[in-house]
Amino acid sequence: MFLDRFKSFKSYKTETTPCKIKLSSNENPFDLPDWLKEKIGEEVKKIPFQRYPDPTSQELKEVIAEFYGVKPENLVLGNGSDELIQLLIMIIGDIKKPVMYPIPTFPMYQVSADIVGRPKIEFPLNENFQLDKNKIDKALEKKPILAFYASPNNPTGNSFDRELIKYTASKGVFTVVDEAYIDFSDKQDFVSEALNSNNIVVLRTMSKIGLAGIRLGVLIAREDIAKEIDKTRPPFNITYPTQVIGKIVLSEGKDEIKKQINIIKKERDRMINEISKIKGVIIYPSDANFFLIKVSDGNWLHKELIKHGILVRNMSHLPGMENCLRVSIGKPEENTEFINTLKEIINK
Amino acid sequence: MFLDRFKSFKSYKTETTPCKIKLSSNENPFDLPDWLKEKIGEEVKKIPFQRYPDPTSQELKEVIAEFYGVKPENLVLGNGSDELIQLLIMIIGDIKKPVMYPIPTFPMYQVSADIVGRPKIEFPLNENFQLDKNKIDKALEKKPILAFYASPNNPTGNSFDRELIKYTASKGVFTVVDEAYIDFSDKQDFVSEALNSNNIVVLRTMSKIGLAGIRLGVLIAREDIAKEIDKTRPPFNITYPTQVIGKIVLSEGKDEIKKQINIIKKERDRMINEISKIKGVIIYPSDANFFLIKVSDGNWLHKELIKHGILVRNMSHLPGMENCLRVSIGKPEENTEFINTLKEIINK
Repeated sequence: MFLDRFKSFKSYKTETTPCKIKLSSNENPFDLPDWLKEKIGEEVKKIPFQRYPDPTSQELKEVIAEFYGVKPENLVLGNGSDELIQLLIMIIGDIKKPVMYPIPTFPMYQVSADIVGRPKIEFPLNENFQLDKNKIDKALEKKPILAFYASPNNPTGNSFDRELIKYTASKGVFTVVDEAYIDFSDKQDFVSEALNSNNIVVLRTMSKIGLAGIRLGVLIAREDIAKEIDKTRPPFNITYPTQVIGKIVLSEGKDEIKKQINIIKKERDRMINEISKIKGVIIYPSDANFFLIKVSDGNWLHKELIKHGILVRNMSHLPGMENCLRVSIGKPEENTEFINTLKEIINK
Repeated sequence: MFLDRFKSFKSYKTETTPCKIKLSSNENPFDLPDWLKEKIGEEVKKIPFQRYPDPTSQELKEVIAEFYGVKPENLVLGNGSDELIQLLIMIIGDIKKPVMYPIPTFPMYQVSADIVGRPKIEFPLNENFQLDKNKIDKALEKKPILAFYASPNNPTGNSFDRELIKYTASKGVFTVVDEAYIDFSDKQDFVSEALNSNNIVVLRTMSKIGLAGIRLGVLIAREDIAKEIDKTRPPFNITYPTQVIGKIVLSEGKDEIKKQINIIKKERDRMINEISKIKGVIIYPSDANFFLIKVSDGNWLHKELIKHGILVRNMSHLPGMENCLRVSIGKPEENTEFINTLKEIINK
């Protein structure tokens, strides 16, 4: 009875069918180089595990601040950006006032709102998966306090119209620009807007660029805003190992990560180019480390790919995503195998 | 304006004045043995950091289930029990219905309730820091849905009357028994009640027994209750390193941890015995890895101890805790130094 409202609640599910090639979770396909992993092992074994970690994550924040070109005081760290999304949904304005976001998008906004019972205003993207001013205006009529825009958007891969994001903020809505995939985009980010506004903040994550395992999300905001949000964060939310590993990788491993990102971008462009030549497959443009394809029977293709040892994310169950599959960029040889397998299945 | 309700909000603060002897955070004073830390370093460097951790923490859950003598299906894991406390406050019943807990107690119940704006019913313990049926009855009149009982209680160190905890649950309140310190107690725990009830759950933590650094809290409940709560947990809340390190330490390091716990219990009894002989110091009984003392001027003693390189937790600011200090059990030599220093300061 206490948990009745969760009887029909759908938690965030991720597909874990074991496959030889995993292109389903938008992870960086490349492991860290051995020398960096050796260093990590050496440093982790020195941790006094019996002690609480630094509640301010000060040293890690300094490294991240340099990585993003901001100050440590502009940052709030989360146990993945999942934690930051949930935190924002709990604390921004009255919890009973609505949150708005376009659909389809990253499902955690909906999941987090449902957990605290915050009302949701979901409004559709247009046929190109772009924001539509009329639909935003309609959403604004319902008096939302908080907006989430994932740009580049997941699962569609495109970036949203900057002006419409700014327009939402200009209407007095606290606007969260979730830039989880911006590292793979050449478009302008929202960092300078966040640093100069009391109602725009940016979310970043280390999960797409090689550190999904340590769970490290970052909120970037004006100092006074960051300070208020930081007060509401659980005091020891960033584990000791995550602080140590994050510090090593984002300083000593920085060049390696940038190299990997460049390969992923090149591979994305190669895949989109090759797949766009396959008849019967619609492929959408992408600024991210994945792309979306549409075929005549998405469920069937998803299963066929698994039979061939390739796992991608089936999006067919989402409204507006019928017969769509989301494919993460893998290593070059994995991508080639995906392209060849796709051709083989489609032409069968 | 969006964050106005946090203007006067006090986040959970922990004292971090660097001191030679740290007896302030109820940590296990003993580090893991070198052979175990070597093993941890070896295993951590094998982690594919670019991959998300197992969202179900299945292997870690199996080890924890064996550690506690329950089934993996009875467990929900949190990024520290802090995360589980916050989750329960968000999800149990209507978020606008009150949560009850005695004071003084662990401050996270109040902090978490304030973050989501859940009403609080705080009721005092009696002069022996024990639960009082009349005060519970008065609290129940205000129709709480959720209750937190830390037993052994922090910062008082004593265990609560089992019958009054069960009484609260019998009145239809979802009752959380936070057993963070039970490993140091010889009293009966609430696990069997939790496994056989739809409104009693138990919280445990690895933070007091040697793993504060990896943030690992555990909720124990009947299978169906655990399943519903688990649905609302962020999908990747337990990091990859925490899963790997937790698995190693709670299996291969189990005997070592039990040995350390036994030393801590013996040291606690020795300290209480010795300090009770010091005139001008009241010391309270404790089932935990810390104890509470009361002196004529707590703020002064706290500062004097820091001058001597010893950090304890000053509780003087809490209602009913005037002139009280909380002292964690340290290593034998640290404890002896604490006792001698205390004598010296008090007799000055």
